[in-house]
Amino acid sequence: MRMDQNLEESSGVVDLPCRIISTGKYLPKQVLSSTIESNHGLPEGWSSKFSGVNSRHQVSHENVAFMGARAAESALEKANLTIEDIDVVISANTSYDQPLPNKASLLLHEIKGGSNSRCSAFDVNATCLSFVVAFNLAAEMLQHKERKYILIVSSEISSKNLDASDWETLTLFGDGAAAAVVGQSQDKKSGILKFKHEAFTEGHDKAKLLGGGVSYPFSEYPWDVNLHSFKMDGKELLRLSLKYIPHFMKDFFSTLPFNWSDVDIVIPHQASKTGLNIIKKLVNIDPEKVQRSLDIYGNCIAASIPLTLNDAFDKSKIIEGETCFMVGTSAGFSIGALVYKHGQ
Amino acid sequence: MRMDQNLEESSGVVDLPCRIISTGKYLPKQVLSSTIESNHGLPEGWSSKFSGVNSRHQVSHENVAFMGARAAESALEKANLTIEDIDVVISANTSYDQPLPNKASLLLHEIKGGSNSRCSAFDVNATCLSFVVAFNLAAEMLQHKERKYILIVSSEISSKNLDASDWETLTLFGDGAAAAVVGQSQDKKSGILKFKHEAFTEGHDKAKLLGGGVSYPFSEYPWDVNLHSFKMDGKELLRLSLKYIPHFMKDFFSTLPFNWSDVDIVIPHQASKTGLNIIKKLVNIDPEKVQRSLDIYGNCIAASIPLTLNDAFDKSKIIEGETCFMVGTSAGFSIGALVYKHGQ
Repeated sequence: MRMDQNLEESSGVVDLPCRIISTGKYLPKQVLSSTIESNHGLPEGWSSKFSGVNSRHQVSHENVAFMGARAAESALEKANLTIEDIDVVISANTSYDQPLPNKASLLLHEIKGGSNSRCSAFDVNATCLSFVVAFNLAAEMLQHKERKYILIVSSEISSKNLDASDWETLTLFGDGAAAAVVGQSQDKKSGILKFKHEAFTEGHDKAKLLGGGVSYPFSEYPWDVNLHSFKMDGKELLRLSLKYIPHFMKDFFSTLPFNWSDVDIVIPHQASKTGLNIIKKLVNIDPEKVQRSLDIYGNCIAASIPLTLNDAFDKSKIIEGETCFMVGTSAGFSIGALVYKHGQ
Repeated sequence: MRMDQNLEESSGVVDLPCRIISTGKYLPKQVLSSTIESNHGLPEGWSSKFSGVNSRHQVSHENVAFMGARAAESALEKANLTIEDIDVVISANTSYDQPLPNKASLLLHEIKGGSNSRCSAFDVNATCLSFVVAFNLAAEMLQHKERKYILIVSSEISSKNLDASDWETLTLFGDGAAAAVVGQSQDKKSGILKFKHEAFTEGHDKAKLLGGGVSYPFSEYPWDVNLHSFKMDGKELLRLSLKYIPHFMKDFFSTLPFNWSDVDIVIPHQASKTGLNIIKKLVNIDPEKVQRSLDIYGNCIAASIPLTLNDAFDKSKIIEGETCFMVGTSAGFSIGALVYKHGQ
């Protein structure tokens, strides 16, 4: 909704004042779908047709901390800040370089100047919705005025855990990282209007990576493509989405003075071609408002939403006074939504 | 400090009103140090003498979600609540049953009635300080009055990742889980007075588990005791603690109207015998105030602080109007401290 007075009033009160000051991203080398199709014996065009992915990026030398640090440095540079200005670093992702220490410590160490920082550094993991959950937590923390800046980083590497015989996941996922610097809102008109995150654990086994933890320790279960690759039941995830999203959204917008179709820009998790198409089924919204990066990045797990957000900022699609709706489903299974109003 | 008026005034203003309503724990079977010494060829009494651990608990059939769920159910029962009353579940630990989905989803599914819950469920990982960081986040979230109850669960299994030839870690670590239900403070006099968490990433490689993530993927690095066991450089961790804790504490208490020696009860992370002994070097505090569980549980990573807290509550050592100081260091390396004042 554009900034005329009536519409501004109808856009609701900011619940948690805060401001996305800048975003950044890092992408490893691009891998075209035609290359994957040719390397793994898939029919030409299979990926675009069934997964909706024309290209994605995949790591060669990079690890999770490396990609996250480069995305973070880009966001910091755009904000004209250094890591020493940051009060809290949140690593909001599922991928990890090592089981211990936590991702945020390794990330902070990798960021230029990070070893001189004295910020708080911890991980938040809500699978694909990690960035959205972390953004809300950052906004909660920024209600303490002595905290000035929080850095959220989502860096994901899926390419090390794919089963080449499972064409759906092989073609769908991509690697990449994105970051955002969030700070105080000067006029209290920028911030989160509403956030909601709900678990539906009947879907806890519909998207999973079983091996390598306590349940199937590596010391007892040697590497096996079935146990150590990401597995998902796309049909079941779609069924759960269609079953629970309508009520979730009805409830979400019931306390807001506008509906889903009224938001100015939608940043959905890039779950899959079918997943993105659910939006059309559920809401009569101008398709131009719904940002897509699935075709060029694939599903980058928790990095999908901030990567799409970063590109929307870079293309000046997120405008002061307007509402940005971040929404998605995630492994677990959960649904999450957040309305952010951008301003000073 | 007891609840007389002058002392109440001097105990500081509650920054984030909230209340620890209940705690719970789950421990797997006890394993005496004599058993470990006899099984692995250690001299009799080595564990008590060098690690300060007489016994710890180790899993047989349990996994991380199972232990966490039992601890959570115990805390819920004491609070006379069910999981459906809970708004947010935070899994605050380092151990994981599977790399995906997140721990909180698997935990929630395992809790009695959890699959009917519609709460938010996510993980927070700040290694050994995960519970403290999560408690502060829970308190921030409870400033929204529509959130009534947040469940924090720390469940840790270290016994699957120990190198039997490394006596220091073999004897030091234990498995266990603890949970806390945190809710609104009725009179606003219960809550967090201050929280601080600082990273010192020069210590990022002094406590680590290298293998099994993106840097050393299973598919390329077969199981190896050095790569896939927890390694720590105890001397370096001690050096970092002695280097950074004094300034951290001076700064921490500089804005509070009391000093470390004035807090009523200290719940330290049970890092090690040497680690616990640092407290005596740094502060002239009545040793009776400093709670210890290292001898009976070992170092239970993020579960150490809530296990010790649970036992202090069970023994009625945490009294209304009094201050509880949670403090510790963690892999990463980081230092964290939180003052909680218990009340209604």
